[in-house]
Amino acid sequence: MGLCVLKFGGTSVASPDLILAAARRIIDTRAAFSRAVVVVSAMGHTTDQLLELADAVNPHPSRRETDMLLATGEQVSIALLAMALQSLGAPAISLTGQQVAIRTTSSFTRARIRSIDTTGIMAELDRGRIAVVAGFQGVTDDGQITTLGRGGSDTTAVALAAALAADVCEIFTDVDGVYTADPRLVPDARKLDRISYDEMLELAVLGAGVMHSRAVQFGQRYNVPIHVRHSRKSDAGTLITRESPEMENASVVGCALKENLGRVSLRDLPNRPGVDAAIFNALAEADINVDDIIQNEASGGGMNISFTVEHRDLADIKPAMERVLTGFGRGEMSIDVGLSRVSVVGLGMRHHTGVAAKMFTALAEAGINILNITTSEIKISCIINRSDGERALKSVHSAFDLADGQPAAIDTITPMRSVRA
Amino acid sequence: MGLCVLKFGGTSVASPDLILAAARRIIDTRAAFSRAVVVVSAMGHTTDQLLELADAVNPHPSRRETDMLLATGEQVSIALLAMALQSLGAPAISLTGQQVAIRTTSSFTRARIRSIDTTGIMAELDRGRIAVVAGFQGVTDDGQITTLGRGGSDTTAVALAAALAADVCEIFTDVDGVYTADPRLVPDARKLDRISYDEMLELAVLGAGVMHSRAVQFGQRYNVPIHVRHSRKSDAGTLITRESPEMENASVVGCALKENLGRVSLRDLPNRPGVDAAIFNALAEADINVDDIIQNEASGGGMNISFTVEHRDLADIKPAMERVLTGFGRGEMSIDVGLSRVSVVGLGMRHHTGVAAKMFTALAEAGINILNITTSEIKISCIINRSDGERALKSVHSAFDLADGQPAAIDTITPMRSVRA
Repeated sequence: MGLCVLKFGGTSVASPDLILAAARRIIDTRAAFSRAVVVVSAMGHTTDQLLELADAVNPHPSRRETDMLLATGEQVSIALLAMALQSLGAPAISLTGQQVAIRTTSSFTRARIRSIDTTGIMAELDRGRIAVVAGFQGVTDDGQITTLGRGGSDTTAVALAAALAADVCEIFTDVDGVYTADPRLVPDARKLDRISYDEMLELAVLGAGVMHSRAVQFGQRYNVPIHVRHSRKSDAGTLITRESPEMENASVVGCALKENLGRVSLRDLPNRPGVDAAIFNALAEADINVDDIIQNEASGGGMNISFTVEHRDLADIKPAMERVLTGFGRGEMSIDVGLSRVSVVGLGMRHHTGVAAKMFTALAEAGINILNITTSEIKISCIINRSDGERALKSVHSAFDLADGQPAAIDTITPMRSVRA
Repeated sequence: MGLCVLKFGGTSVASPDLILAAARRIIDTRAAFSRAVVVVSAMGHTTDQLLELADAVNPHPSRRETDMLLATGEQVSIALLAMALQSLGAPAISLTGQQVAIRTTSSFTRARIRSIDTTGIMAELDRGRIAVVAGFQGVTDDGQITTLGRGGSDTTAVALAAALAADVCEIFTDVDGVYTADPRLVPDARKLDRISYDEMLELAVLGAGVMHSRAVQFGQRYNVPIHVRHSRKSDAGTLITRESPEMENASVVGCALKENLGRVSLRDLPNRPGVDAAIFNALAEADINVDDIIQNEASGGGMNISFTVEHRDLADIKPAMERVLTGFGRGEMSIDVGLSRVSVVGLGMRHHTGVAAKMFTALAEAGINILNITTSEIKISCIINRSDGERALKSVHSAFDLADGQPAAIDTITPMRSVRA
């Protein structure tokens, strides 16, 4: 007996008609798997509307009350979707995060799942029902309602699929799957049939908005195949799975652009143990994600560190870093804004050489200045000016022949390790 | 240390501004009592909007899923009200029916409260917080979300006040209090300073919409003083309490009009035990409330029964009664529509005589035909044609001098018991 977890995002349940369409899709999918658990997000712009209401009564609402408020969005969706399934003759029951017992940490607005009790869901499946579970929400050990933050509903779905040992987690969304680049920016971008967890993780972090990295991490840890597909098309989408030998053939599987970045440069810091820890603890306390970290020794014997952050975090970062510099008794800060990051990702980089050279050549030929470079085993990222972003993405996409699905020829021998700054 | 339970209805929290106004009111009231528990309904027309969404996906949604859906309305309100209180500097915490542990029966959409665990609320009050509790909702022993049906939030408030042994339950609403008649229909209707539970119960059942009878019954059973008042005026409203000697002075304390009634007449029924039981069990199974029941022997030895129902129940009543008549093997049914009920209520009727005669005289002088009469110890109701309704209410209100607050002179000696049909 197969078991499938299906997840529908907010745009896929934004109206009663769409909810009924989702219900039909669920019934069809269930016919193939025999048992189905559905995870659903809040309808359309519900979450934004609730946050607007909150802002009107309190510009700085407590995170506990924010979660109490936001959790209602998914509760509306599960009730309506269960009703829609019932109206189509399919037995169904809605369950809140609390009712399933999706236990989380007590970090309101960004809680992490600690455990899922599958007893109740399995009992409903055994009764022949479709279990419709609220995404994005959970409950602490003492009964407080929490939400999981960005990518929360995807995370709920993949975590449930893991806990239930589902055959697959189908993520129904408003795009056809994962593309070699954002098709709104690169018209000849191609849909990928398969991608590995590692590649998807890199792409998610680097700016591909299809799946949030937390959900992909869950899938990777518990080996849950994730199928990203369009909610109103029957075509297969993209399967996110463990890497398989044929994946290695492609040196680059996709590229991504992330915009609205700023670069924080700290110069002339003391060159002694504990300096990094002080900086990154301060960033963690302010709940700021940073990337593209580059550290090197300055000519005068001090140390330089720079990293990128999203524009929206700049207001918090300045005071946090000023306090750290005051603590050091030395150092200077400068901030550049209006930056973007263009990246290429592919498992094949581990074996193919020349990927970095090809990327830099493509950018150079397009006359684009590279401000910073960072790499991992399976990605290369370049920080560029925002005005160059779209052109950079297109150049790189074209250089690696991503549109036609054949691995790009790599004929130079620059080992990519040498790129590390 | 005093404790006050405050309840705000949907119209009193229909917008962020109104929520902030309610929050200020709560803070002021709490200053007088030192401890405050707030019960709140869903904002404005939220419940209707949710029911519209439900109807669009399933014209006959399951009652369990309806409760799952509707309970979100109050959850939004408690979160926003807690945020508003916090923004005004008052420590507050929102609690769902589940979190308080308001245990109910499992009759979805019309559950009854079985118990309330006050431990959690008392702990929050001890921490100096205002507890903001979702009205209208509860939870079954196995964790299902239920709602209490009509008058649910009032019932939550009064039940909480009883469980917490509060000094008073203040019901903030969009009217000034309980009036001698609906002031929209009778311009010189007068606000009552006090009314007994019994009188308020009769008025609530008879059509005065201020308080639902369930909440008043709770108040009476646990002797909770209920103060009905305007949410945006500081004037005292109407206190619903145990009867006191001075209340007996008024033969009639108020009058009420209920419209859109139909009268079901069953004639020539078998005259044997079990006939009433069969009829009223069938009505209970169809969840139909009836009133003004009159039963008498027909001239041919059979039995006649008639009763009134609301128009909206007529569609369900016809098939139910037809099945009952088929079971009897005899009997006829006829239904009159377009009726109203005008009633007068007052504890003083128990001691004063002539109340019925005065009422009938007033209606006769206004040329209004009385179709049926029913009485209790403290009320007299007349079924009339709907077109006579407003005029009947005004005539009766005037006959008992309700506008000037002095007990009406009763000078006839017709004992009201003789009115019983």
